[in-house]
Amino acid sequence: MRVLLCNRDSDAPDAWLGDLRHALPAAQVDVWQPGLPPDYDHAVVWSPPQQLFDEQPQLRAVVNLGAGVDRLMALRLPPALAIVRLEDAGMAVQMAEYACHALIRFFREFEAYESQQRAGRWAPRPPRVRADFPVGVMGLGALGARVAQAVRQFDFPVLGWSRTPRALEGVRCFAGEAELGAFLQATRVLVCLLPLTDQTRGILNRRTLSQLRPGGYLINVARGALLVEDDLRRLLDAGHLAGAALDVAAQEPLPAGHWLWTQPGVILTPHVSAQTLRGDAVAQVVRALQAIESGVEPPGLVRRERGY
Amino acid sequence: MRVLLCNRDSDAPDAWLGDLRHALPAAQVDVWQPGLPPDYDHAVVWSPPQQLFDEQPQLRAVVNLGAGVDRLMALRLPPALAIVRLEDAGMAVQMAEYACHALIRFFREFEAYESQQRAGRWAPRPPRVRADFPVGVMGLGALGARVAQAVRQFDFPVLGWSRTPRALEGVRCFAGEAELGAFLQATRVLVCLLPLTDQTRGILNRRTLSQLRPGGYLINVARGALLVEDDLRRLLDAGHLAGAALDVAAQEPLPAGHWLWTQPGVILTPHVSAQTLRGDAVAQVVRALQAIESGVEPPGLVRRERGY
Repeated sequence: MRVLLCNRDSDAPDAWLGDLRHALPAAQVDVWQPGLPPDYDHAVVWSPPQQLFDEQPQLRAVVNLGAGVDRLMALRLPPALAIVRLEDAGMAVQMAEYACHALIRFFREFEAYESQQRAGRWAPRPPRVRADFPVGVMGLGALGARVAQAVRQFDFPVLGWSRTPRALEGVRCFAGEAELGAFLQATRVLVCLLPLTDQTRGILNRRTLSQLRPGGYLINVARGALLVEDDLRRLLDAGHLAGAALDVAAQEPLPAGHWLWTQPGVILTPHVSAQTLRGDAVAQVVRALQAIESGVEPPGLVRRERGY
Repeated sequence: MRVLLCNRDSDAPDAWLGDLRHALPAAQVDVWQPGLPPDYDHAVVWSPPQQLFDEQPQLRAVVNLGAGVDRLMALRLPPALAIVRLEDAGMAVQMAEYACHALIRFFREFEAYESQQRAGRWAPRPPRVRADFPVGVMGLGALGARVAQAVRQFDFPVLGWSRTPRALEGVRCFAGEAELGAFLQATRVLVCLLPLTDQTRGILNRRTLSQLRPGGYLINVARGALLVEDDLRRLLDAGHLAGAALDVAAQEPLPAGHWLWTQPGVILTPHVSAQTLRGDAVAQVVRALQAIESGVEPPGLVRRERGY
């Protein structure tokens, strides 16, 4: 088995190469560069260039070192190429942490307490009621399910929405366009984990976000292009939304001077809600390649027609 | 059954009285005041004065509207009086929220990201390793057990320490003075939920806190007097501890100008980590009084010799 590695965003490319070679002792693993002979079986990639696929049309599978394949799917890929994405690889627990930190921060008013601390003011605030904070999770794959489970254990009412119907214990599940309105209207804290596809681009907009309960919150840990940022701004300024935690932006890095940097109520992080952890990722890559070599469908196989 | 209510800290005394009367329709429930005839059976209290017990020596039981009975136990109480404390009453999930918010904030460096946001800087930081953040929970009653369970679901290694041996699933448990050192040395983030007794006063001090792993953190959601605040300051200044989340202080409200208000790395809240929620508390009071009237030991019965 011959494997190409093309992980250009990594700050430790040698470590990835070493770990993959160690985990696949019978394989030849090379770092991609232009002009290599077209005799590789599989590629392991993050943000690869179009040139890789143009030069290696014989590839049978590509494993994406992340959960979101939107950038990969924007390339011209050989029609028979199997596309596999990391479904968890240590990311689900990080997403759960990120979402719970933001949720608890909003619910328990920790930002207000920090202001009080800076002002030297000891002043308990009246407790808020958990039943008034139903949490709606959009996207119920491996990551969304883990987030919903984590939120549930803090006794919040939990709702979920997905493209196709799902059943999750303790989660009131909605599905499809027909049930989106009912889901949003019952939600106060919206956590978005949707994949970015032609169907979901801009799905967080004035029409949808204005249906959240008054004093609502948005937590977006998926992709910036899911959100119409100007619509969020209007709803925050109007007070219909009380806050947002955004790990992603339409343009990354977020440009200097962008209103999001200083908007009151907005927590902004630089796309770190779930970082790919090398050990977990390499183990999942190996399982995917072994499945493909054995003729078995690997977990995380992308269905092209739906885009994830 | 005749019941006295003395809940002087409450901002809604009429609501407590109304809810108790509604929940105990066959009982007479009165608000305590000086000079009432000594013919009441039970008292439901928070921060009661000595005078209440001096005037009502015939009381059979007192229910404390909180988990910590240290202030109550500091009074002269009739020797045969049964003392009952609220064991959960909606407090456990709040403690779990508070502890997880602080833990995730420390582990994921959210404070650093907020500084970056204020500076308009988009800069991912290298992920930290969960295995380097073992979380040790001191006090494994109803509240501590719930906190340990919440921490565990974020995949941190979890340790526990209690006066007498306990077994909790997925928690490496230590007990007694003999095992305190081993517990501390294996812990990086210490969450304290101990009751305040003669044995635990000042238990968080230079000798104990310096045994935590370097770069350690303290989360104190119990009582201020468990901590020797000046020892914490020295360990923070020396860099052995990296931060603390303190919901309680030796003197409350914390005096103006106290160093804790402005100490870098310290998150300070005004004793709100677990607020008594009226509905939950009233239900638990009713269960306690019914158990006592039926001659059954109520949950939360305080053992005077151990102080909680």
